[in-house]
Amino acid sequence: MVGYGLYVDQARPFLPANAIIQASGMTKELERAGLALDLALQGQKVAVVSGGDAGVYAMAGAVFELAAARQLNLGQKIGQLSIQVIPGIPALIAGAALLGAPLTHDFCAISLSDRLTPWPVIEKRLDLASQAGLVVALYNPKSHGRDWQLAKAAEILGRNLAPRTPVGIASRCGREGQKTSLTDLGRLALQEVDMQTLVIVGNANTFVYQGYMITPRGYADKYAVKG
Amino acid sequence: MVGYGLYVDQARPFLPANAIIQASGMTKELERAGLALDLALQGQKVAVVSGGDAGVYAMAGAVFELAAARQLNLGQKIGQLSIQVIPGIPALIAGAALLGAPLTHDFCAISLSDRLTPWPVIEKRLDLASQAGLVVALYNPKSHGRDWQLAKAAEILGRNLAPRTPVGIASRCGREGQKTSLTDLGRLALQEVDMQTLVIVGNANTFVYQGYMITPRGYADKYAVKG
Repeated sequence: MVGYGLYVDQARPFLPANAIIQASGMTKELERAGLALDLALQGQKVAVVSGGDAGVYAMAGAVFELAAARQLNLGQKIGQLSIQVIPGIPALIAGAALLGAPLTHDFCAISLSDRLTPWPVIEKRLDLASQAGLVVALYNPKSHGRDWQLAKAAEILGRNLAPRTPVGIASRCGREGQKTSLTDLGRLALQEVDMQTLVIVGNANTFVYQGYMITPRGYADKYAVKG
Repeated sequence: MVGYGLYVDQARPFLPANAIIQASGMTKELERAGLALDLALQGQKVAVVSGGDAGVYAMAGAVFELAAARQLNLGQKIGQLSIQVIPGIPALIAGAALLGAPLTHDFCAISLSDRLTPWPVIEKRLDLASQAGLVVALYNPKSHGRDWQLAKAAEILGRNLAPRTPVGIASRCGREGQKTSLTDLGRLALQEVDMQTLVIVGNANTFVYQGYMITPRGYADKYAVKG
């Protein structure tokens, strides 16, 4: 099993006693992917673990990216490996369930990390997504050395959405220290967030009812429901 | 337990023998939500089942929408009920895992059903999402009486994306009859789809490698990986 330390520790109890475990630090995605491919090419059965869902800002992409690059550039027989992605519950789904039903209409996920994506691309996505009326789930709102992105994102979203637009904040979903709170777009820049926090910004129809954040699909309107 | 017949049948084996089961037809979301609230107000413990994740185009939103409308308009004591959403694996995540790693970068979900959303709103979202470079997961690409939406969506996405943009198609994920295939945007309009099909349209960087659909996050570029 190969993975980031935090996730390896969570998976450890489910492994057989003779399993070989290789943990590595954050931002070492390619190192982990390379190790997994090396072991697999040696004939080992390898599991790469991720938090949430492996396909959402996580290790599945890194493994495939590296596999393709190695086959192309080194001629390694990666194509012979069988790679299977096991789906999980991504943070935006776990967080949404804790908050109520904020993703019931069209939505998007945008990462605020500019480590691999130029910031102007992220700004453009925030602007167009809020113009489009998509509910916006913000991944990686802050990290060591990145402390201004959330305030800037709130400003950009605020060009297309009212300050009172509901915002849900969910941290460490399904893990120790799990925490949620509700605020609004006008106060988003002031919230405490970190790399383990997911932020969900509603659309123009999102409302808060009894502490739940809800994006209506429009059933009640369509059928003129009054009770 | 309250739910659409197909999902009720899947959940039935996990229920105790004395459970009361109420199944109803497709498009009867509000009827089911209303029944669930009625039973809960009578003091019953009620589970509403959905396919995939209850919060993504599914029953969680309908229950909350109706609860809020009833409290507001009828003064029912809905606020006393405790409502909990149990997260699941939505079709876009299950489908993505079967296809490879198409959602590794920013993505969105857009439903092509214009039953509750005006079609011009859907068109605008498709246009802006593809301008933004978001991977686009299309829900409800076709249903009885709706047969032209997928071709129109392909045309709109094609204004911002090349015809060779990879497209993954996944049907009945995790259920009997599960099926996936790969095509491209230029041929999307010709594909066989139905209400149980999810369509994932890549972004400008998405590629196909050994039958897997992959949207790179940019690890290999960033670190100039050649092997």
